[in-house]
Amino acid sequence: MATTRKEFIDFFPQLTEDILSELPSFGATPEMIARIKHMIEYNVMGGKMNRGLSVVDTVKIMRAEKELPEDVNEKAMVLGWAVEWLQAFFLVADDIMDESPTRRGQPAWYRLKDVGILAINDSFILESCIYRLLKKYFRSEPYYIDLIELLHETSYQTELGQMVDLLTAPENDINLDRFSIQKHGYIVEYKTAYYSFYLPVAMALLMTGSAADSPVFQTAKDILIPLGVYFQVQDDYLDCYGDPEFIGKIGTDIEDNKCSWLVVQALDRVTPEQRQILNDNYGRKSPAEHAQRVKELYKDLDIEGIYKAYENKAISELQEKISKVDESLVPREVFIAFLNKVAKRTK
Amino acid sequence: MATTRKEFIDFFPQLTEDILSELPSFGATPEMIARIKHMIEYNVMGGKMNRGLSVVDTVKIMRAEKELPEDVNEKAMVLGWAVEWLQAFFLVADDIMDESPTRRGQPAWYRLKDVGILAINDSFILESCIYRLLKKYFRSEPYYIDLIELLHETSYQTELGQMVDLLTAPENDINLDRFSIQKHGYIVEYKTAYYSFYLPVAMALLMTGSAADSPVFQTAKDILIPLGVYFQVQDDYLDCYGDPEFIGKIGTDIEDNKCSWLVVQALDRVTPEQRQILNDNYGRKSPAEHAQRVKELYKDLDIEGIYKAYENKAISELQEKISKVDESLVPREVFIAFLNKVAKRTK
Repeated sequence: MATTRKEFIDFFPQLTEDILSELPSFGATPEMIARIKHMIEYNVMGGKMNRGLSVVDTVKIMRAEKELPEDVNEKAMVLGWAVEWLQAFFLVADDIMDESPTRRGQPAWYRLKDVGILAINDSFILESCIYRLLKKYFRSEPYYIDLIELLHETSYQTELGQMVDLLTAPENDINLDRFSIQKHGYIVEYKTAYYSFYLPVAMALLMTGSAADSPVFQTAKDILIPLGVYFQVQDDYLDCYGDPEFIGKIGTDIEDNKCSWLVVQALDRVTPEQRQILNDNYGRKSPAEHAQRVKELYKDLDIEGIYKAYENKAISELQEKISKVDESLVPREVFIAFLNKVAKRTK
Repeated sequence: MATTRKEFIDFFPQLTEDILSELPSFGATPEMIARIKHMIEYNVMGGKMNRGLSVVDTVKIMRAEKELPEDVNEKAMVLGWAVEWLQAFFLVADDIMDESPTRRGQPAWYRLKDVGILAINDSFILESCIYRLLKKYFRSEPYYIDLIELLHETSYQTELGQMVDLLTAPENDINLDRFSIQKHGYIVEYKTAYYSFYLPVAMALLMTGSAADSPVFQTAKDILIPLGVYFQVQDDYLDCYGDPEFIGKIGTDIEDNKCSWLVVQALDRVTPEQRQILNDNYGRKSPAEHAQRVKELYKDLDIEGIYKAYENKAISELQEKISKVDESLVPREVFIAFLNKVAKRTK
């Protein structure tokens, strides 16, 4: 797997060059090209790249090949990078909307001196690049239009999830009345699960010959969306209960007024007195006693135990669903590989 | 033509309903649907709608029919609204980037109390709607993929133009050294001419059977891009020299530090002393003497005369090009109709 990652990273400059080399035909000057190069490299490259790599991994499992033929491997990597590019489009914009200071250990793109609000238009350009790359590498494939429609639909889903997220937890306006289990579920499903879990597998299915109207896409969705939701719930759990040494950061969801799985579970179970404690302490950046008070309440409500029960149930339900997958449509191993990567992770 | 406009406007609620009625299948709640409805109506409807109407007009000329068959008329109106929807996507974002207080006589969308920075994500949703509508109305047409590629490419062109515009005239940083005739040309061509002039005609050509690789698209581009540039130059001219009673607003390009055709022509002709006058007076919101001083300089340089000469040359060159159009590909009347709407307009 380590070689796949290196190969995937090494392929990135070719795609950047594909974008840059056609820019003169769009009248671009060397200054414009240099700026777009910097913008792409700053925002697309980085992070764990699990989403992009999972396209390549899934194609390998689908074809039951450890080494893909060169042309297939290249196409799978293009689609993997398309997912990473899509994420970059969203993250550049999300960071502006969330006023995030940093991303992947460096200043968020919009925070750079020469960028600022131009970042909005840069996010549009990142999105446009995806369709330039698809056109170059997939235009003559019979599933070209299906790929485009898949990306359009996934973008729309992600945008709807982001809308609910922004409406539920607006900056600088703490109101726990807006939080609910239902809204949390919508946000994690639409804002994260579709593009992070369903999209890479759906791309791999199209690439390996599944017709767009095949029932395999519904099968994939029925497993990967709950899996993506479980992944995000786990993320919320680890933010509070994970070992900072392992996860590489100190969680601040409570201080940041996040609509976390933990707080919506707590809100579902509080007495009026406990609710008042949440109202008075959630979403306060300082002093640290506020967050501490919320964590004590989580302890009183045994939120950790509730999470463990949720996790065990989620895993066994996913295993059950996977065991029923019609292997003439897709190997169960596709989903088992995903589940194994997610289940019981500590970072 | 007045009936076409009314019919076009009356068709808008059907498209909005197309978007809203499928939102429950995206898990949307009634609150989400109500918000998206308001967002679409606030931003897409309004303005002169010349871009959208020109799709319908062009299809009529192409087919040599005063009344289109019902299904053709509907498709032409969908594409017309797709252009208006695309414009809404850009304008919602542009207004944030330009810090514009108003748009079409009402507060810019991002300025509304409950919107703010969510407007970024709303602009994404407006873009996504375009592809939902194309899918609904054009999925079974042989030119479906060509329509999508045309919209992707036009979006990319517009984004590149917007990038140069933002880099050339950043907010709160006046520096005329960045202005040039060349950059002005790039901005008007890429930011405005492609989506406003070429896109509607290219859509109409696809709808009426032109193959995507037909030379007619290059013919259309060769005429419509210079025509769009002329239109925008005229806009810059009218901002300063138009009758406020006719154009419906008092121009403020000088005060707003706009990279206008007038100022780049002036910069191309100034003596060092005159250049200093521009440096000291351009882009100052107040007092009014600054803008007055710039206008006096324009007078000294006879910018108005230079514009008249440009306009006459632009019109005769366009007429010349139109006269050479191969009418077996496209009726010259398509371009004559556009030129007549633009030439010598006073508002």
